[in-house]
Amino acid sequence: MANSPSGDSMTQRIVRVLETFTTERTVQTASEIGRRAGLPSSTAHRLVDDLVREGLLERDDEHSVRLGMRLWELALRGSRALRLRQAALPSMERIQARVREHTQLAVLEHDAALFVERLSHPDAGANITRIAGRLPLHASSSGLVLLAYAEPDVQERVLAAPLAAVAPETVTDAASLRRVLGGIRRSGFVVSPGSVESVSTGVAVPVRDETGDVVAALSVVLPRETPTEVAITELLRAARDIRSALSRR
Amino acid sequence: MANSPSGDSMTQRIVRVLETFTTERTVQTASEIGRRAGLPSSTAHRLVDDLVREGLLERDDEHSVRLGMRLWELALRGSRALRLRQAALPSMERIQARVREHTQLAVLEHDAALFVERLSHPDAGANITRIAGRLPLHASSSGLVLLAYAEPDVQERVLAAPLAAVAPETVTDAASLRRVLGGIRRSGFVVSPGSVESVSTGVAVPVRDETGDVVAALSVVLPRETPTEVAITELLRAARDIRSALSRR
Repeated sequence: MANSPSGDSMTQRIVRVLETFTTERTVQTASEIGRRAGLPSSTAHRLVDDLVREGLLERDDEHSVRLGMRLWELALRGSRALRLRQAALPSMERIQARVREHTQLAVLEHDAALFVERLSHPDAGANITRIAGRLPLHASSSGLVLLAYAEPDVQERVLAAPLAAVAPETVTDAASLRRVLGGIRRSGFVVSPGSVESVSTGVAVPVRDETGDVVAALSVVLPRETPTEVAITELLRAARDIRSALSRR
Repeated sequence: MANSPSGDSMTQRIVRVLETFTTERTVQTASEIGRRAGLPSSTAHRLVDDLVREGLLERDDEHSVRLGMRLWELALRGSRALRLRQAALPSMERIQARVREHTQLAVLEHDAALFVERLSHPDAGANITRIAGRLPLHASSSGLVLLAYAEPDVQERVLAAPLAAVAPETVTDAASLRRVLGGIRRSGFVVSPGSVESVSTGVAVPVRDETGDVVAALSVVLPRETPTEVAITELLRAARDIRSALSRR
């Protein structure tokens, strides 16, 4: 509906505008947005004005805009991410207190692991994940868990696509990955040393909702030399607690 | 741009659709959305299809949709709320550990206090705030702090509007509120017993960013009989720490 001459819908254009904002690029001019979104300058200026009027963008100064608090409010208020995160936060804080490294919660979103929460101890080691950031399913420990319990068509699509090495030790051949995924379904957790960064080991478990469906992966990122037993125990316990918390909501 | 015969823009229509989702109403049919958003049924169905195609909404089953993870990702990735919340979370966890009640972070958004984070101790008392929820500026302790440091035109607009009593003790006359706001600017904190709920006392302080601007209010909600001294001390310390954290980002 409301298609432009080039055939893209207004919704698509709005998404393309919002996509130009990233963790590293939070303030932009309308011209920069237009260029990055592939929109004509006049279209970009009108659309930015329109989005500012509705509060989805906010003016930073005369020429620059950033994402609006109203957008944040609309996106969060009724969201699955917020419900999941609220159910998981107390458990994540407990893991954090025991393991004193990075603790993360991720969901499957468009064939990637999308991180909805991350707690980090001030002294914790390296970790590349960010809230609202993504990692490939085949590389991150969270992604492997999400892939292990994903619908068969998602698994086949991901395994059939080219699998990029994020680090030298990332498993990138489909046959080996199938064995890893089978192992996760049997053991209920994964330990992935060096699959995202050579200095780190990811440990992840599935989080199930009240119906038993796997809705998220809970993970910690440990320095490579740290033993993983405590983390596995804490993660499995937390996953049980989160399932209980979800069934109480 | 792309105006409909009724004169509302596509952006407005999309906002009206997203507004129909709330904390209590996370799954809806396209017909329900149309009715609640005041859109003709055929328009609502087409717009919902369009939003599903872009991932801003997701199908829950054949007939129902909910907010999409893609919307959450786009809204958070480059947002001021996320930056602020990440800078504040370690301090909020420390308050939480000491005060063992509810700890909240709120920003000024369209003449209301919008809550961007909330941590709750399992044994904590009553508290009506929710993440991505709002409270009136003149009633909540967070709102009073945000109003005390708001631009003069915001203060005048809020004080000139009808001020509803959220609880029997909410201060609703403009002259008394002006004195409260002056007191906050002199002392640097507020203690509001019973202004939102008779059983609770809100305690709030301003949070400044690296430039010295007040960008948020940090608050705890205590049972009415709890002394407030520890909370005030912890909140003031946390506000200093958050300012330092923001200047390091």
